[in-house]
Amino acid sequence: MVRQLFELCGRDPALRFSPYVWRVRLILEHKGLAFEGIPWRFLDKPSIEPAGSKTVPVLKDGARWVADSFDIACYLDAAYPDRTVFGGEEGRAPARFFNEWLNRTVVLGIFPMIVADIASVLDDENAVYFRQTREKYLGRSLEEAQAGREAAHAQFLKGLAPVRATLERQPYLGGNRPGFADFALMGTLMWPHVVSGFDVLEGAGPIVDWRTRMDAEMGGVMDRATRA
Amino acid sequence: MVRQLFELCGRDPALRFSPYVWRVRLILEHKGLAFEGIPWRFLDKPSIEPAGSKTVPVLKDGARWVADSFDIACYLDAAYPDRTVFGGEEGRAPARFFNEWLNRTVVLGIFPMIVADIASVLDDENAVYFRQTREKYLGRSLEEAQAGREAAHAQFLKGLAPVRATLERQPYLGGNRPGFADFALMGTLMWPHVVSGFDVLEGAGPIVDWRTRMDAEMGGVMDRATRA
Repeated sequence: MVRQLFELCGRDPALRFSPYVWRVRLILEHKGLAFEGIPWRFLDKPSIEPAGSKTVPVLKDGARWVADSFDIACYLDAAYPDRTVFGGEEGRAPARFFNEWLNRTVVLGIFPMIVADIASVLDDENAVYFRQTREKYLGRSLEEAQAGREAAHAQFLKGLAPVRATLERQPYLGGNRPGFADFALMGTLMWPHVVSGFDVLEGAGPIVDWRTRMDAEMGGVMDRATRA
Repeated sequence: MVRQLFELCGRDPALRFSPYVWRVRLILEHKGLAFEGIPWRFLDKPSIEPAGSKTVPVLKDGARWVADSFDIACYLDAAYPDRTVFGGEEGRAPARFFNEWLNRTVVLGIFPMIVADIASVLDDENAVYFRQTREKYLGRSLEEAQAGREAAHAQFLKGLAPVRATLERQPYLGGNRPGFADFALMGTLMWPHVVSGFDVLEGAGPIVDWRTRMDAEMGGVMDRATRA
């Protein structure tokens, strides 16, 4: 049975844009594990019910369903230890901190800068759902949130300072080769790359160089990806 | 030759308060490596010149001088691999990100909350140096900076969110046992513990429980330490 990855998509089913799904895609590609990407949208809750989740990524590997990008990374690294991303238990536990940091500082930092762009790639029904839930969360319209992105961007770059400092000392967050943190950050950056013309890494110095290295490492994933 | 660790101290030479030195102390204790703590003050630059550093920690191990808390941790884990804190190269490279995050979010977050308390433990000559350099950095008096600590504390706790989320899933940042991140964070927290009556972890939930576990793991280091 073909391995299946449920992936958030836009009106165009080829437009896959979830930062969490991209993390799993990159890890599957890194490990050379074939998979079929199943288009999924915010309102398609029933199709992923067997995973006990209301959000993607969801991976179906044979009879096994796994949800949550970090849990899927753990599952894949245990089931397919070749080309490990964690380097075993010693690396897996500390990676959880990076994941929690990433989900706050980077995901929540990027979100308002591209939120109206995201809405523009959705089909009508999902766009209504997205606008209602996200405007409630943001406390303002998607357009108002995104209009402030030049100022938000300066703040966002400040939050990336620990990444910049690390990449001034070593080529990858994982050291001399990419590890979980590299795939997780690169996957997150595929989200703005795919839905928006706004370059969130503009002025990010060594992080831009690192993104170029990661893109080459992943066989030109930025050019290969369907963009809005 | 006895291993020597140069440690920042106050007017009272027994009062050792540097967050960076404490990281090394805890790692030396964890590894069961004996050392002599050499009292050092801001203005004692010449005594640590052989290490090529103007700040402590500086470790002299036999003929070898090593400066910088992260580099010392790397040196110790390579030279004395028993009771590893990095778990080898796979864990060492990603730990650099945590170290960079810690030095910004946690060290710079704590600093203004205890900065006048720090000045109060110093001898006169070092207090003058400390006040001049730190007031220039802060752009206000030490007392003004510290007076805003209730508001700063709420912001500080927000910055700790990735630590809290990680510790809701596992007992230590290193997983089931302490690793570099645990010693580095605990060492940093010894700094306010030693110089100030202000509890920077008040309201930090699972991080308070973790500190209690780390304190027990280190044989009651909080009670053992000389405090102001």
